[in-house]
Amino acid sequence: MSGNTFGKAFAVTNFGESHGPAIGCVIDGCPPGMELSVADLQPDVDRRRPGTSRYVTQRQEEDKVEILSGVYEGKTTGTPVCLLIRNTDQRSKDYSEVAAKFRPGHADYTYLEKYGLRDPRGGGRASARLTAPMVAAGAVAKKWLLQKYGIEFRGCMQQIGDVEIPFEGWEHVPNNPFFAPLADVSKLEAYMDELRKSGDSCGARLRVTAINMPVGLGQPLFDKLDAEIAYAMMGINAVKGVEIGAGFGCVSQRGSTHGDSLTPTGFATNNAGGVLGGISTGQDLEVSIAIKPTSSILVPRETIDLNGAPTQVITKGRHDPCVGIRATPIAEAMLALVVMDAVLRHRAQCADVLPPLTPLAASAT
Amino acid sequence: MSGNTFGKAFAVTNFGESHGPAIGCVIDGCPPGMELSVADLQPDVDRRRPGTSRYVTQRQEEDKVEILSGVYEGKTTGTPVCLLIRNTDQRSKDYSEVAAKFRPGHADYTYLEKYGLRDPRGGGRASARLTAPMVAAGAVAKKWLLQKYGIEFRGCMQQIGDVEIPFEGWEHVPNNPFFAPLADVSKLEAYMDELRKSGDSCGARLRVTAINMPVGLGQPLFDKLDAEIAYAMMGINAVKGVEIGAGFGCVSQRGSTHGDSLTPTGFATNNAGGVLGGISTGQDLEVSIAIKPTSSILVPRETIDLNGAPTQVITKGRHDPCVGIRATPIAEAMLALVVMDAVLRHRAQCADVLPPLTPLAASAT
Amino acid sequence: MSGNTFGKAFAVTNFGESHGPAIGCVIDGCPPGMELSVADLQPDVDRRRPGTSRYVTQRQEEDKVEILSGVYEGKTTGTPVCLLIRNTDQRSKDYSEVAAKFRPGHADYTYLEKYGLRDPRGGGRASARLTAPMVAAGAVAKKWLLQKYGIEFRGCMQQIGDVEIPFEGWEHVPNNPFFAPLADVSKLEAYMDELRKSGDSCGARLRVTAINMPVGLGQPLFDKLDAEIAYAMMGINAVKGVEIGAGFGCVSQRGSTHGDSLTPTGFATNNAGGVLGGISTGQDLEVSIAIKPTSSILVPRETIDLNGAPTQVITKGRHDPCVGIRATPIAEAMLALVVMDAVLRHRAQCADVLPPLTPLAASAT
Amino acid sequence: MSGNTFGKAFAVTNFGESHGPAIGCVIDGCPPGMELSVADLQPDVDRRRPGTSRYVTQRQEEDKVEILSGVYEGKTTGTPVCLLIRNTDQRSKDYSEVAAKFRPGHADYTYLEKYGLRDPRGGGRASARLTAPMVAAGAVAKKWLLQKYGIEFRGCMQQIGDVEIPFEGWEHVPNNPFFAPLADVSKLEAYMDELRKSGDSCGARLRVTAINMPVGLGQPLFDKLDAEIAYAMMGINAVKGVEIGAGFGCVSQRGSTHGDSLTPTGFATNNAGGVLGGISTGQDLEVSIAIKPTSSILVPRETIDLNGAPTQVITKGRHDPCVGIRATPIAEAMLALVVMDAVLRHRAQCADVLPPLTPLAASAT
Repeated sequence: MSGNTFGKAFAVTNFGESHGPAIGCVIDGCPPGMELSVADLQPDVDRRRPGTSRYVTQRQEEDKVEILSGVYEGKTTGTPVCLLIRNTDQRSKDYSEVAAKFRPGHADYTYLEKYGLRDPRGGGRASARLTAPMVAAGAVAKKWLLQKYGIEFRGCMQQIGDVEIPFEGWEHVPNNPFFAPLADVSKLEAYMDELRKSGDSCGARLRVTAINMPVGLGQPLFDKLDAEIAYAMMGINAVKGVEIGAGFGCVSQRGSTHGDSLTPTGFATNNAGGVLGGISTGQDLEVSIAIKPTSSILVPRETIDLNGAPTQVITKGRHDPCVGIRATPIAEAMLALVVMDAVLRHRAQCADVLPPLTPLAASAT
Repeated sequence: MSGNTFGKAFAVTNFGESHGPAIGCVIDGCPPGMELSVADLQPDVDRRRPGTSRYVTQRQEEDKVEILSGVYEGKTTGTPVCLLIRNTDQRSKDYSEVAAKFRPGHADYTYLEKYGLRDPRGGGRASARLTAPMVAAGAVAKKWLLQKYGIEFRGCMQQIGDVEIPFEGWEHVPNNPFFAPLADVSKLEAYMDELRKSGDSCGARLRVTAINMPVGLGQPLFDKLDAEIAYAMMGINAVKGVEIGAGFGCVSQRGSTHGDSLTPTGFATNNAGGVLGGISTGQDLEVSIAIKPTSSILVPRETIDLNGAPTQVITKGRHDPCVGIRATPIAEAMLALVVMDAVLRHRAQCADVLPPLTPLAASAT
Repeated sequence: MSGNTFGKAFAVTNFGESHGPAIGCVIDGCPPGMELSVADLQPDVDRRRPGTSRYVTQRQEEDKVEILSGVYEGKTTGTPVCLLIRNTDQRSKDYSEVAAKFRPGHADYTYLEKYGLRDPRGGGRASARLTAPMVAAGAVAKKWLLQKYGIEFRGCMQQIGDVEIPFEGWEHVPNNPFFAPLADVSKLEAYMDELRKSGDSCGARLRVTAINMPVGLGQPLFDKLDAEIAYAMMGINAVKGVEIGAGFGCVSQRGSTHGDSLTPTGFATNNAGGVLGGISTGQDLEVSIAIKPTSSILVPRETIDLNGAPTQVITKGRHDPCVGIRATPIAEAMLALVVMDAVLRHRAQCADVLPPLTPLAASAT
Repeated sequence: MSGNTFGKAFAVTNFGESHGPAIGCVIDGCPPGMELSVADLQPDVDRRRPGTSRYVTQRQEEDKVEILSGVYEGKTTGTPVCLLIRNTDQRSKDYSEVAAKFRPGHADYTYLEKYGLRDPRGGGRASARLTAPMVAAGAVAKKWLLQKYGIEFRGCMQQIGDVEIPFEGWEHVPNNPFFAPLADVSKLEAYMDELRKSGDSCGARLRVTAINMPVGLGQPLFDKLDAEIAYAMMGINAVKGVEIGAGFGCVSQRGSTHGDSLTPTGFATNNAGGVLGGISTGQDLEVSIAIKPTSSILVPRETIDLNGAPTQVITKGRHDPCVGIRATPIAEAMLALVVMDAVLRHRAQCADVLPPLTPLAASAT
């Protein structure tokens, strides 16, 4: 009811605040018998870790994941997997100004109104830092889905601020600090350097995808696979828009163009983005999301204080000039969690009637 | 788990198929003591009913709502409210062709793969007809939210196919068959007439909004108000994209522009779309959705049959050339259901700590 | 949240009031592809139907089940199955006295305090009549579990009022109106005839069991199979106690006696009642429940009216002198729903790791 | 779905294994603004801690609770409260024998069959040690319920093995190691000393109660307050039976006796145990539970090994001769969690219609 659990069959309960003793999550429903160690989780967590380039926040968090339960002799036991990340870089900063004013674009005002009090340290529970345990949980899902079905998840940057990023190939993504599918990122470097100097921030548009998807995942009303994806993506800090397949482009398409033809070797196109009627088609999942500019900026902003009196606020400290950059591994993880949950739920209802989930070419021939 | 229930505190369980004996829903969690009769539900259901203009499907369904439970002497009792709509216009059509081929853009293939069988009559469970009970349930939520907080929900068309629709005023919406906020819809009429003649279909973009919103609704992780909205909207048949506030426009915004300033009389702008950190700000909720072109068209399409052999399919029958048109009352209803659920959930946790939910001007002064 | 849904994977949402237009339920999560018709449901519903002997209420309800959705060409489609039972014997009785006084042992007072109003007709939502849709839903589960695993459910009477009923054999149960496992029920007939003449009522103790149980069902914390059974049984109207296996008898047992030894051919005894650590052992489930005396009696009772003033009340009308009698098929149905839910949930998490669920003898050899 | 979360509105997700690094829980839905520190939790946790008398296991666990999240400057923030207890006394014991044989009365066999593997160290997840975090979570609920409504929870021993314990008064309970409501416990001491020498174990019967209960708690179908209590109690390790109010005694009662009369000053009796129609009456909740004898005993038992071959097993180590003794604070905590959840859920649906929840005398006058 309070909503800190993501998923129903692979249910991840998240806890913690940005500057409390620790953050973490509990995964309930992990299939037993899978080999699992910290080494499976740390690489993805490190991909979203702060302080890895000059284009992201310089906060230095080790983000070391501990597995507190659910694994025995290196294998999952089917009992809850608790993942813990200690907060190490909690600067003994003075939060009195942040506590006394509402920062535009932040959740300061809404948290205070909802709960009657709030933890102002580093954004408290509203911090994007709380996505780190989800990335770790997503890594568990990714491993299982890869082993079981060969499903893989990938994300890349499509646009940063005003700069559209052409897609040259997935192989470039790990080679630059922007998760850009591009060989030469000098233009992005220049753009980001200038942005940082201005003290301002910018938005971003990301693409996330899943390949080797089985057919048949998703509960048509209302837990459609695409509805679950939209929920997961819009739940990531700062996301303001979600598209599946053709997305908003479908508005000006004709039905004769949009509807993907079926052929003996598979669908001819993928305007659907891999989902029809809320159920996976076996095509790649294609998702695009919009991430708003970082709200913590050095440019002075008009606001009010706790008494409602007008004032100004500047957010000092170490902040990402484009939070969208570190969102790529987060979006991948959330997509993996959605697919994982859908697989387990599908098995509950349909395991006995159907042959193993298969892609179109195999099943339709 | 199987996903046919929408909401947690105001939980609506949907049932039925397009051409079965009846469709309907059960509302669990409706507050007791509210006056309720069919007269409260029928107007919204009639707004989405087929056959009301030449621009929508000519299927003639009365869509008469019956209240089977949960109301005694004209008041809700707090027990489940079952709403039933009998299917009256089930033409004794021959579905053998539809049953033997997969229609592009439809859920034929995915349902068959998921369940091992499917009901081909009128799209079965995948039909947009299943939104009718949600519109009725949404009307219950709308009535309660209006009485209790003065919250109102409105929707209008922003674009049909290639035609962008300027916003002239909400008062025009009920006066034309397109839900267009526009005095003169002759251009739309001409566009739609031509489209219908071509046997093809087009997409649409809608706006839905809630006014007089209280502050403090939404569960920040993960059942954020915007995440729930995205889930609800993407769960409507044919929706491929969802935006909150600035939406995809935020990608090229600067932080200094996007973050809405707070002033003693309220927020200066609404790029947030009424949600910060997953919690309502008290501003209007602003949501935009993209709806794909109708998949049932007269233009012949390439596809495969049940044996995987290539073939063609034409979808005869009575279909909406733009399903987006009738989606306006559906989107309003789904938004109302999200807000209703958020209010009840908020009360569970926070009822004792806080003063009654209030908008910014009042609370911050 | 409002609790009118039973189960998570095989989720049954119940609706209706005793004297409203209809009662019913929606089953969400039913596996697809199972043959299902009203003929599968009606026999169990008829077993709990009123008016079948002089030892139960003479209310004449046909209790005809209709299937409104989820079945196509005689097979379940995997979509929600709505089961409807019209209320036919709604006597135009004067409920003003019942509405003005609180009947001892009834939910009159608690409903009014909880909801601020109540439906006094025939007990409204608190009527045991609301178990009829659960019996129908249980019949769906029974059919599937029998086909899939050979699991069968049986119930019988162990005690009526002061009369202990020796167990002579299951074959007697359908041959007498008391569900007694006894050839000669003349003693029970005499007891019940006398009770009825006195205008009073009595309690009962029932046994319910499941045979051919698979090993491995149940979620150890907290949705243990026995915890779910206790929840299901205590949720039946008038139940005040639940035992699994040795039950309260375990208090004076020694550990050396209670713990069931394992042998190469199976467990030597069944003090566990078929559950260890919340997970099924493959032995028969053994459950015993206590049902309180009917609260509607002709004997005058002290009570208060709506103003809190002392008064007396007599409950006229057609009532069961021992509600426990008709509870046998209800308890069987609820046990079937618990097992069904546990099977589907088990498949979600463990389907890929394990061989098909097997009983001890087979698996341990 | 996997069931490691208890409650819906005050949802406690439990994690950990007996001999893993740590055990704990995450409370989701805790009302904000309540003062909370470890000092509120430790006393109850200490009451169930092992090693406190010679009548319980000598395992030495400090059971120090840490609050990892959800509290800021000494107050709950409304965000998840993670409670952690490090396992300190994990003896480097040889578990090879336990791992190779199934101990009668234990969950060894069922865990292995369900998950395909199991953690044999100290019972793994099936250990009663996992109730410690629930006791801590229960302490949070107790504090809030006491402050808000004056509700208090109490438990005591009613019977240990063959020794019935007369009720002399609640004041005795904290003064003896048996939670006995009795001044002179010498008879119990002698009984337990003899039992321990025999290497065997015995069962117990406990009473738990809540006083100053509000009227109106509980969701009538199916999350009745008594059904939730039965679920909670049967979910405690080793519980085999649950009674509410008159319990199994109701079987031989007459309706004219069982139904509690209402008078202007309240109910005359409490056969209902504080619940009618699944909703609290405002009377004390009265619950009784049966706890089986400890399965870990020194008496040799017949069993089978992993290959299904017959063998014997003795459970050495430090075990409670009567696990029921330490179950008293556990049962209190679980009852508190049920009531807490019911209060929050009641507020969601009914907060606006009703006056504050009140007991009978006040409301009916």
